[in-house]
Amino acid sequence: MIYLDHAAATPVSKKALLTMSPYFDDQFFNPSSPYLPANHVRDNYEYAKDQIAHAIGAKGNDLIITSGATEATNLAFTAVNTIDAEHPEILILETEHASVKSVANSKPAKLTEIKVDKTGLIDLVDFHRKLNKNVIFVSIALVNNELGTIQPLAEIAELIKKERESRLETGNKTPIYFHSDASQALNCLEVGVARLGVDLLTISSAKIGGPKGVGALYKNHDVKLEPLIYGGGQEMSLRSGTENVPGVIGFAAAAAEAKEHVGGNRKKYEKLAEILRAELKKSPIEPLFLHNKKHSLSSFVPVSFPGIDAERLIYKLEEKEVYVSTGAACAANKGTRSHVLEAIGLSDEEIAGSLRISLGPLNTEDNVKEAGKLIVAAIKEELAR
Amino acid sequence: MIYLDHAAATPVSKKALLTMSPYFDDQFFNPSSPYLPANHVRDNYEYAKDQIAHAIGAKGNDLIITSGATEATNLAFTAVNTIDAEHPEILILETEHASVKSVANSKPAKLTEIKVDKTGLIDLVDFHRKLNKNVIFVSIALVNNELGTIQPLAEIAELIKKERESRLETGNKTPIYFHSDASQALNCLEVGVARLGVDLLTISSAKIGGPKGVGALYKNHDVKLEPLIYGGGQEMSLRSGTENVPGVIGFAAAAAEAKEHVGGNRKKYEKLAEILRAELKKSPIEPLFLHNKKHSLSSFVPVSFPGIDAERLIYKLEEKEVYVSTGAACAANKGTRSHVLEAIGLSDEEIAGSLRISLGPLNTEDNVKEAGKLIVAAIKEELAR
Repeated sequence: MIYLDHAAATPVSKKALLTMSPYFDDQFFNPSSPYLPANHVRDNYEYAKDQIAHAIGAKGNDLIITSGATEATNLAFTAVNTIDAEHPEILILETEHASVKSVANSKPAKLTEIKVDKTGLIDLVDFHRKLNKNVIFVSIALVNNELGTIQPLAEIAELIKKERESRLETGNKTPIYFHSDASQALNCLEVGVARLGVDLLTISSAKIGGPKGVGALYKNHDVKLEPLIYGGGQEMSLRSGTENVPGVIGFAAAAAEAKEHVGGNRKKYEKLAEILRAELKKSPIEPLFLHNKKHSLSSFVPVSFPGIDAERLIYKLEEKEVYVSTGAACAANKGTRSHVLEAIGLSDEEIAGSLRISLGPLNTEDNVKEAGKLIVAAIKEELAR
Repeated sequence: MIYLDHAAATPVSKKALLTMSPYFDDQFFNPSSPYLPANHVRDNYEYAKDQIAHAIGAKGNDLIITSGATEATNLAFTAVNTIDAEHPEILILETEHASVKSVANSKPAKLTEIKVDKTGLIDLVDFHRKLNKNVIFVSIALVNNELGTIQPLAEIAELIKKERESRLETGNKTPIYFHSDASQALNCLEVGVARLGVDLLTISSAKIGGPKGVGALYKNHDVKLEPLIYGGGQEMSLRSGTENVPGVIGFAAAAAEAKEHVGGNRKKYEKLAEILRAELKKSPIEPLFLHNKKHSLSSFVPVSFPGIDAERLIYKLEEKEVYVSTGAACAANKGTRSHVLEAIGLSDEEIAGSLRISLGPLNTEDNVKEAGKLIVAAIKEELAR
């Protein structure tokens, strides 16, 4: 098997699995129970939160553990409910993930989308123009989940800061909060909340070699949120429910690994991507590489073969045990066209011929080279048909 | 170690752990991905949902998978948001779990509590009186999480049905939905949604030997809910986020085990509870057994030793590696008094002397007997102080 869809799912790393295992078994205690072994579990849980927070330059107390990135993003958007504004407006990129689009749409606020260029990079002029006095919430993913494009969050934060200052001068007390979904980032990118200038940051366990069903929201002290889930008062009363201790312990191990290997991963995936692209260039249809050469995660190799039906290609490759996707997993199974590829201005033919390739721990120099050959062979077969 | 707090947490059963393990590793695929191994994971996920549903006499399509019982209960209560009523009113028992109390309080509706008797059993006369034409939502736990009291849901459902009929006759179109939290029940009680007459039922993985961080809400076709979490549209768009596949597979294995052993478990815990109570009766302070002799789960042994400080008792027992709690785990660590024990009319002294003992797979005839002896010895020490 050659797996080229790490952005959709990644196996749990051996280390994460080993670290979390005792918490299913003899360390099963409820961290809120009053006796010693439960206190011990509580301590390890809090330590795990510190480890996760450390990977983004924050403290454990700044994190609210959730059941995944989607919940974290939904929790971030509750900030909108807490702001009293006459004509509230939310800004997102047109290429944001379904979870951001969907929750943004559910809010009683005007939703405005910011344009991107043909590599998915934010149009800062468009952003600046749309950042008016009514904007209360901005949500821009650090790394796009189909293209791997890395957005200049620090520059965006700088513009938001200026808008805040101009509001202060005019006595306008409406706040603006800046949220980013960084789910795809931690494996290959050094992430620090202060440097990025975000108020809220979504991170995910499943995308970095931790277990599914766990995520976290970073929140700075100024932001007010509302609980999505009420109950026993866990996670500073912002997210009730018995803590998923094994999940959080596994997430922490994965986050620590990601932080440790971030430089090595970046270089490794750069090399693998180069090898893969070199093979893909041998295709009789010239590949259109969609990534931003300067600002994208090296593990993403989005590519289009205009004129080819990528859906058919996927099934052909499946027979060779090469697994690759056309778009985000949640959209992929529904036959809907990728809004990301539309946003970067691809033609219908280019969209229909697009593969989302994302590299990860299951890839080696040999298997990406082999994958490239098999993709080219499948294209040749399609052309001969 | 002798563990007497299974209502707070239970280790994951060997079978559940074994069944879920491959889904961390080589079956790691995103069930929404378009290739064969991912389709296979999707099939197994749907089969697991069927297994879970089967344990409560429902179909997989009737379930919305959540991150636990608390989220499931919160999702159930979104039904309140969908009902347009002039003076909406919610009825709950005064002994409901913190998650029910807390989410009920967050709704823009009048909240009325139903009285219970001194064993925690619902006062049906009080319920009937309070079931007026404004009531839109009723939430009553099948099994109380501190006392083990089993509520007569079918009788309650019958009264609700009559109220519905009388509304039909008068042209009042306001619906009433009946929700029950059955988190504690599946191990020792045969649960069938049709027989119980509920519209919504919360179940939990962690309480029945499955992993933490997974739960489900049963919903009949008539009930309208609102998502708490928006996104990629998973779980019939009522609960978005990449599916926690290993969690759901583990939950299903535990649910199947619970269903298989429900009769044996009930008898086993009846016997263990008898042995334990026989030992506790040797205490120099006469134990006040708080359970309902006819209508309570056999695994619960709530007891008070009036005059004894149960908090001190817990620390004394902890030294002997006997782990027991005073109240629900979420409340236990906060030094708040149990609202359940207040509701059943215990005196301050009786509340202060109360232990919540809940039996489970870690208990044997020998270790509950030993636990009983150690509890009595600790009481004697306390009296000698």
